[in-house]
Order: sequence, then C-alpha cells, then structure tokens
Amino acid sequence: FRKRQPSVASLIQGIRDGDKTALSRAITLVESKNKTHLVQANQIIEACIADKKNTLRIGITGVPGVGKSTFIEVLGKYLTNQGKKVAVLAVDPTSSLSKGSILGDKTRMEVLVRDENAFIRPSPSEDSLGGVARKTRESIILCEAAHFDVILIETVGVGQSETAVHGMVDFFLLLKLAGAGDELQGIKRGIMEMTDTIVINKADGKNKQAANLAKIEFTRALHFYPPKENGWVPKVLQCSALENEGISEVWQTILNFKDATADAIYDKRKYQNKFWLLQTIEDNLKMQFYEDTAIQQQLEQLTTLVMNAKVSPFVAAEQLLALHQKKLK
Amino acid sequence: FRKRQPSVASLIQGIRDGDKTALSRAITLVESKNKTHLVQANQIIEACIADKKNTLRIGITGVPGVGKSTFIEVLGKYLTNQGKKVAVLAVDPTSSLSKGSILGDKTRMEVLVRDENAFIRPSPSEDSLGGVARKTRESIILCEAAHFDVILIETVGVGQSETAVHGMVDFFLLLKLAGAGDELQGIKRGIMEMTDTIVINKADGKNKQAANLAKIEFTRALHFYPPKENGWVPKVLQCSALENEGISEVWQTILNFKDATADAIYDKRKYQNKFWLLQTIEDNLKMQFYEDTAIQQQLEQLTTLVMNAKVSPFVAAEQLLALHQKKLK
Repeated sequence: FRKRQPSVASLIQGIRDGDKTALSRAITLVESKNKTHLVQANQIIEACIADKKNTLRIGITGVPGVGKSTFIEVLGKYLTNQGKKVAVLAVDPTSSLSKGSILGDKTRMEVLVRDENAFIRPSPSEDSLGGVARKTRESIILCEAAHFDVILIETVGVGQSETAVHGMVDFFLLLKLAGAGDELQGIKRGIMEMTDTIVINKADGKNKQAANLAKIEFTRALHFYPPKENGWVPKVLQCSALENEGISEVWQTILNFKDATADAIYDKRKYQNKFWLLQTIEDNLKMQFYEDTAIQQQLEQLTTLVMNAKVSPFVAAEQLLALHQKKLK
Repeated sequence: FRKRQPSVASLIQGIRDGDKTALSRAITLVESKNKTHLVQANQIIEACIADKKNTLRIGITGVPGVGKSTFIEVLGKYLTNQGKKVAVLAVDPTSSLSKGSILGDKTRMEVLVRDENAFIRPSPSEDSLGGVARKTRESIILCEAAHFDVILIETVGVGQSETAVHGMVDFFLLLKLAGAGDELQGIKRGIMEMTDTIVINKADGKNKQAANLAKIEFTRALHFYPPKENGWVPKVLQCSALENEGISEVWQTILNFKDATADAIYDKRKYQNKFWLLQTIEDNLKMQFYEDTAIQQQLEQLTTLVMNAKVSPFVAAEQLLALHQKKLK
C-alpha cells in the first residue's frame, strides 16, 4: 500500500528533483501548527537552506484593483517562455482573518497555474504578520531548492506587510495606476523609500495620457527622497499587463538592477538573514512578556495611568519587568 | 551646619517654587548611576509628573554648523522677553563617548545662560541612546513642574536621536542652511516625515538668494511626502538668528500649530507616554537577552551561520531562546 505521508528524506529528494508535489507538501508542513510537522519542516529547511541560489526574489505591492494578478501572470508567463522557473508566493496578513487569501483563488492566474514551469502558492494563514512572513520566507528557501529561478512575492500592503516583504526580497516593485492628479495621495508612508521601481499599470487606450503625466510626477517625487545606499536610482516605468506591453522593459530593469548592484544583492540577503534572526528573537521575547497572565492583569491599568501622566513610563516599566522576571524564575 | 544633600521633600518643594538650584540637583539625581539617587529621583518624578502642564515641548535638530546654539539663544531670549520661562535640554548620544556634550559649553549661549527666566542643561551622559532619552524625558517633567513654559530640546541628530527627540516633543523643527543646489542631499532618511517646520537659517546678506531658492525647493519637496495625520501642513521659513530676523515668524508658526492641532498635542503626549512605556519594556527585554553570557557565547557564531545561509534564522532563534529560557529558570 502507498504511504499517505512521505518521509522527510523523500520530500527533500523530491524538492531537489524539482517535484512540485513534494514542494507543496513540504510547504504544507512549514505552514502546519502540528509540532511533529514543524520538526519535519525544520529538517527539510535545514537540508535545503545551503543549496546554491542564483535566483531573484522580487516583491510586488499595490492596492487592490491595480491589476497585481494580471501583472504577475503576464510577467510570470514572459519568464517561463524564456525557460525560467517561476514561483509565486504571497504575504497577506488578513487572509487568516477573512479566511480568504490573495492568490487563494487560483482561477485568477489560470494561464500561469497550468504552466509546468510555474508554481503558485497562496499566502499562509497565521495569527500574526510575523508568522505569515516567517512561513513565506521559509517557502522561498524550499522553492529555490526546487530550482525555481525567480520568486515573485505579492502583498496587498496591509499594515506592515510591505516592510516584511521588503525584508525578504532583492527587488521591490510598486504597481500603481495613473490617478487624477496628485499621484502621491494614497501612497503609504515609507513605501517610496523601499521602492526600486514604480510600474504604472493599465497604461493603455484612454489612460495613456494620464499615465504619461503620472510618470513625470513620480519621477519628480523620487528625486525628493534620499538616495539609496546601493547607488540604485529607482525607475518609473509604464506597462499594460492586459495588452502585454512594457513587460520586457520591467524585466530588463530588474536585470539592470541585478547587474548594477551586483554583489550587493548577496550582501543584502546576508543582512536580511541576520535581521530575521534578531527580529524572531525579539518578537518572541515580546510575545512571552505580553502573553504572561501576570502582566496582562496589570498592563492595561498601568498603561492608562502612564498615558494620563499619573505614573512615569519608566517607573511603570520597572514594575512590570520585575513582575515578569519573578514569574520566569 | 548646612546639609550638603537636601531631602527629597525639600527638592520637590524647591522645584514647585521654581528654584533653579533645586531643579538642577533633582536632574543630577535623575542622571546619577547611584541606586539611592535613582530611588530619590523616582520619588521626585512621581510627585512632579501629575502637575498641570500647559507647556510647549519643541525639538530642534540640524547638522553641526547650522547655527543651532545661536538660534536657540535668540528664540529663548525672544520668549523670556515676553515673560515666558524657557528650559533648554539636549539629547546627544555621543556626549558620553566624547566626554564633551552639546550645550556643555555654556559660553555658547552666554546671554541666555544669565537670563533669570532661562534654564540650560547639557545632554546627560549615558551608555545608550535609550538612557540619554529617558533622562532627558524625565528632566522635561521636572522643568515643567518648575513652571517652565517652553522646553527646547536640541539634538545633533546622530544615529536615531532625532526619532527619540521626536517621540518626546509636541513640535519638531529642522534647522537648515541654504545649500548649493540639491537641498535634499544630506537630509537623513525619515527626517522630512518628522518635520513640522523647516527653518532656513543664516538667510541674510549674500545668502539671501540661495535661501529663497532653498525655500522653494523644500516647499516642493514637502509636497511629495504623505500628509500628516493631525492635518498640519509643514511650513518652510527663513531666519537669521545672528541678525535676529524671522524669529517672531518661527514662534508664530509654532503657536499656529498649537491652535490648529489643539487637543491633538495632548493626545500625542498620551501616546508618547504609552510609547515610552512599551519601548522601555522592550529595550529591557532585549538588553537582558543580549547581555546573557550564555547567549553571547553562541550568538556570534550562529549569526555567521545564519548570514551565510547555513542555518535558518528561525531555527537559530529557537535555539537561542531555549538557551535564554533555561538560564532564567
């Protein structure tokens, strides 16, 4: 009889053979809340993490309606046509709340989903953005071990999800529509600094003129932001995912970025790894503190006193830390 | 005989009477590393914290050479001439390293330092920015209890010190010089978003024309940043601290800000208090972890493995957290 659950060793082998079913199953282990599954997931990740990676990790953000799915599908298809293997992942912290998820409805990318060289996986459902980000990050490792060359990571940009995605990619792309004038309205704080390229989508038909104006406005706007440390000057491009126009320019820009920043990409990955190590430690320390029932009983009341300047924040912090310390011992 | 060290009660009384010597001594207790002094400092702060405050806390930043001391002296003098009491504090995380400090050389403000209605205190020396910021923040409480109406907080903007100062003031002012063209060069990331007003200093004589161009450039630049939640549109002003020109416009802008944002200032203070409570807790949790000798022995090696993708950041984090947990128990 056939085993229902393949062994860790066979999953690792399957991933290395580029078997999408093995990859899917391994990601399911990563996303599981079952402790045995998590031990297995860690074994698979430890085996896969050191595999050589000459890959590109690209983050794509944009508000709902901007055409992210169509854009990702067209870009993905453009790449698989060149013989590249493309994985599409997502970071959507709301998916666990709404029980839906971006990329969850695979019919949205019905051409790419049937493409042998593509792998599409919806956002993991988790209670916290930290959890979602962690699991997506581990899935990147598995996709790369399965020989996917380009990893596209979609986010709807709720809360701090763009920052999380920015912290796991080589290149960060902001998808925009041409608006009705002040293009900067509706851009979240911090996004412009993170962006490596702004792509104005739906630059076709009667939108073309507005898209030209938007391109000028965004180019000017980017000039008013501090220069990037890696020397890259963010670009503003136009495309029409629907008409399949401008996609090769987007890809060429990403390749130019890779050439221009060269080893900086691999240095960046090193510092991203370090960042995630420290971030995970610090998130856990905080979680332990705020989930301590002794703390929960006092925190709310003390916070109110502190907010209303009845107790100094520092004195209140000392009290709470002493309480937590006592509990741990 | 006269007691060398006055009692806590007499210091509290002295502060409430507006006695600058008592205020100074209390701040010295706040800044002390002696545990007895810190207990006394906490008692004084707890007594003073609930005192009513109709005050303005103004942060002032700018690179060395921009004329901060002269600006603060002239603004301070302008306010004391109106019968206001003005305290000048500083956040300079480098002062403990260099053993010097901004405001340390009081001859820099020789007019203001002799003004009965002014109180000038150099930056506390501490090992960490967190420590410097904490002590300055507690000094604000004491100055306000001593009936100072306007608190000016200077920072040179090293590291994250502007963020720390922004988190303790009502109004944040960036002092600039007219440059040689691209005004945004040399502006640190994040500063533009924090700024409530940019003041172009030394806008006199042959600098006047450059200052006019800089004003246009900064006004345009601010347009490209997301709007502020309190609805305030940051202003760009010019002044010549040396010629005593433009100071009344700066003050009028601050008063306009206070009127326009009204209760928002007091809400902001509430959230700043909460922020400092949580920040202090989280800083302490991190410090405890990173100062754990068991962690220190392993962290460096594991970080290198993580950076070079030999170990997953999440697996390494789990190992280190388990080690720390064991130590605490």
